Amino acid sequence: VTTSLTQLRIDRERLLSRLDALGEIGAIDGGGVCRLALTQIDGEGRDLVVSWMHDLGLRVEVDGVGNVVGTWPADRFDAPVMTGSHIDTVATGGRFDGNLGVLAGLEVLETVIRAGVETARPLAVAFFTNEEGARFAPDMLGSLVFAGGLPLEVALDTVAIDGAVLAEELDRVGYVGTLPCPARPPRAFVELHIEQGPILEAEGVTIGVVTGVQGISWHELVFSGQSNHAGTTPIDMRHDAALVAALTVVAVRRLTETTPGLVGTVGRIDLHPDLVNVVAARASITVDLRHADDDVLTEAERTILEQVGEMAAAEGVTFESSRLARFEPVTFDPAVVGLVEQVAVEHGHTARRLASGAGHDAQILARVCPAAMIFTPSVRGISHNPAEYTEPEDLEAGANVLLDVMLRLAGAGGDQSRGGDGS
Amino acid sequence: VTTSLTQLRIDRERLLSRLDALGEIGAIDGGGVCRLALTQIDGEGRDLVVSWMHDLGLRVEVDGVGNVVGTWPADRFDAPVMTGSHIDTVATGGRFDGNLGVLAGLEVLETVIRAGVETARPLAVAFFTNEEGARFAPDMLGSLVFAGGLPLEVALDTVAIDGAVLAEELDRVGYVGTLPCPARPPRAFVELHIEQGPILEAEGVTIGVVTGVQGISWHELVFSGQSNHAGTTPIDMRHDAALVAALTVVAVRRLTETTPGLVGTVGRIDLHPDLVNVVAARASITVDLRHADDDVLTEAERTILEQVGEMAAAEGVTFESSRLARFEPVTFDPAVVGLVEQVAVEHGHTARRLASGAGHDAQILARVCPAAMIFTPSVRGISHNPAEYTEPEDLEAGANVLLDVMLRLAGAGGDQSRGGDGS
Repeated sequence: VTTSLTQLRIDRERLLSRLDALGEIGAIDGGGVCRLALTQIDGEGRDLVVSWMHDLGLRVEVDGVGNVVGTWPADRFDAPVMTGSHIDTVATGGRFDGNLGVLAGLEVLETVIRAGVETARPLAVAFFTNEEGARFAPDMLGSLVFAGGLPLEVALDTVAIDGAVLAEELDRVGYVGTLPCPARPPRAFVELHIEQGPILEAEGVTIGVVTGVQGISWHELVFSGQSNHAGTTPIDMRHDAALVAALTVVAVRRLTETTPGLVGTVGRIDLHPDLVNVVAARASITVDLRHADDDVLTEAERTILEQVGEMAAAEGVTFESSRLARFEPVTFDPAVVGLVEQVAVEHGHTARRLASGAGHDAQILARVCPAAMIFTPSVRGISHNPAEYTEPEDLEAGANVLLDVMLRLAGAGGDQSRGGDGS
Repeated sequence: VTTSLTQLRIDRERLLSRLDALGEIGAIDGGGVCRLALTQIDGEGRDLVVSWMHDLGLRVEVDGVGNVVGTWPADRFDAPVMTGSHIDTVATGGRFDGNLGVLAGLEVLETVIRAGVETARPLAVAFFTNEEGARFAPDMLGSLVFAGGLPLEVALDTVAIDGAVLAEELDRVGYVGTLPCPARPPRAFVELHIEQGPILEAEGVTIGVVTGVQGISWHELVFSGQSNHAGTTPIDMRHDAALVAALTVVAVRRLTETTPGLVGTVGRIDLHPDLVNVVAARASITVDLRHADDDVLTEAERTILEQVGEMAAAEGVTFESSRLARFEPVTFDPAVVGLVEQVAVEHGHTARRLASGAGHDAQILARVCPAAMIFTPSVRGISHNPAEYTEPEDLEAGANVLLDVMLRLAGAGGDQSRGGDGS
């Protein structure tokens, strides 16, 4: 890569304008977005991004689970240096999250194409199906299928929280493609994402050099007690499923307070029959635990289940636990991580190494190719919320680091390296 | 009342057969009933009971909030000795609950009519709208309007948990009547009901002589925190509405353990956005507190709100509290209570005085006339549950005590006392 190539820069206004346009699809009050995976709204978002890919002359391919890959040059079939993310959101999501990674990737390719630059490896930008897990479990479902971590037929049978079947929803939005999956691995994968946490902003750092991703454990716990009249049942004769659910919420919080680095969240609680004057017969909750060390995470899971067992027994309530998702901690490729840090410093930015607290498609791609991530600061650490925001100059800085990292990974020149990586 | 009158007995099979027939309307798995107030199913139940009233030749009258009163003799307009209850159920209710009080009342009137007995006062059986409070708040809404405790126009504007407006639902099921409300008070009111608690069964007692009703306090608490990503938000920067809701559930239980006679229940919890990997921005719960002493109940309300305030402040969560319902403890008329006890003993039953833990229409009627209640045992104390059950011989015993108490309150003979209570 020549010096002139590393001086290429993306067009901030073009990137912001695409972020605005995509943010209009599924827009909700407060500047947020509701674009749950494979809903009609998600289909509209997909169509818009695909139209931009076509406008740039990319080869647009869709696989069997609806992952979309745009490649430049369109006639190059050797393994690309890939970037990308996802465009699905949680129900009360923000406008940045996965959208930034996809549209910054598009911006990188447009910058390269407009500059007439040829690289030794092709470049690609992808968006993956159902990263959020807000509609279908597990999260990162599309990239898992892409990387061979989940059989296609299992993914297609997945049932949404609203009862819809993934294969039918995929067909309805028109994203059943023919690209085989698992896919042939890219040459490398680099994802730009907002931090979704408060660390970069708090430390005044512009570029987060992501060293890996925390392990993630999702469980559903269903407590079964006995419904009874709230006025006539003495306290010591109750089998109150809601009480044990509440004790579990508190136990999760207490465990995070005594286990450094552990985060834990109960984000869902559903009672049945859910009436003012009836002791709950059934309570269902989810427990989300995360830690960068797999042993600590496993021990946290064990501790919570043990405490739940004791609390449930004391109330005469039974419970069932089922694992919804489990991702081991991921360590990104040291060479690519080092490259991200080097480019960030060369661009004159403050940079800081950190682990991601959230799951990302890059951690799945890391199973099959060298991968890393670039974080930009999140104002007040807010994400998965309409108030999610990142300053335009930070978006620009992150996209330029992505551009330069991809160019260096792809290598200078054109034809001389075609086919150099075999298949 | 002559000795021969006190030897009148109800027809157990006829009573059981009506309980069965009404239990078929809205029947759910496990032998239960879902007949939420003023739904189409409730309308079908009403139509059946009204048809039975007409079969007996009662004068059937409906008031502006859908309360139904059947009076015998049909041409007597002086204040009756009244019994009754309600036929609405909770979503997962049993077949007895209010239905027993209505159908036992019908059975009492049929027994009297078939025996050709004339009483000094007319007899009446009523069923009141929305006693459960499972669809519209407050509970005991119909009897409240009947007794002048809630303006008719306020009741008609009430919005159900499903968004329906009471006046429209009343019209849809065809129960907008012309009987004025508040109604002219009955001469006396006696209600037969299952205990809905475990005390009578545990002590081997057949007839509960109800001395009064615990005070009831319903609050809704809505906690507002901040939704954020479950993986990236450090624990000490969270404003987790679900945690404060859970701490409140636990605080309610702890308070009942240190306050003798207090029962407390959180039967509803709703989170928003209710997603696995998003810290809850909002949590809404209900708190049901009951005690026989109004001062203790008031102090319990104050203590919970104080604790909630402290717990919410510690998490940086705000909350709003709104009162959904508040009923002071009720003491039933000593003379009628004594009569219930006397008749139970004369009938050869074991009897025990106790306070009701549940709210009942009789406590509202007690505001305007001498009132009392008769309890029959609930197997395993279960109610508001499809498994709710009372032995047939206990139902029969209770209905016969009701018959005899009503006959003694109504007085012997016919014309000599007509008009004796003026208006």
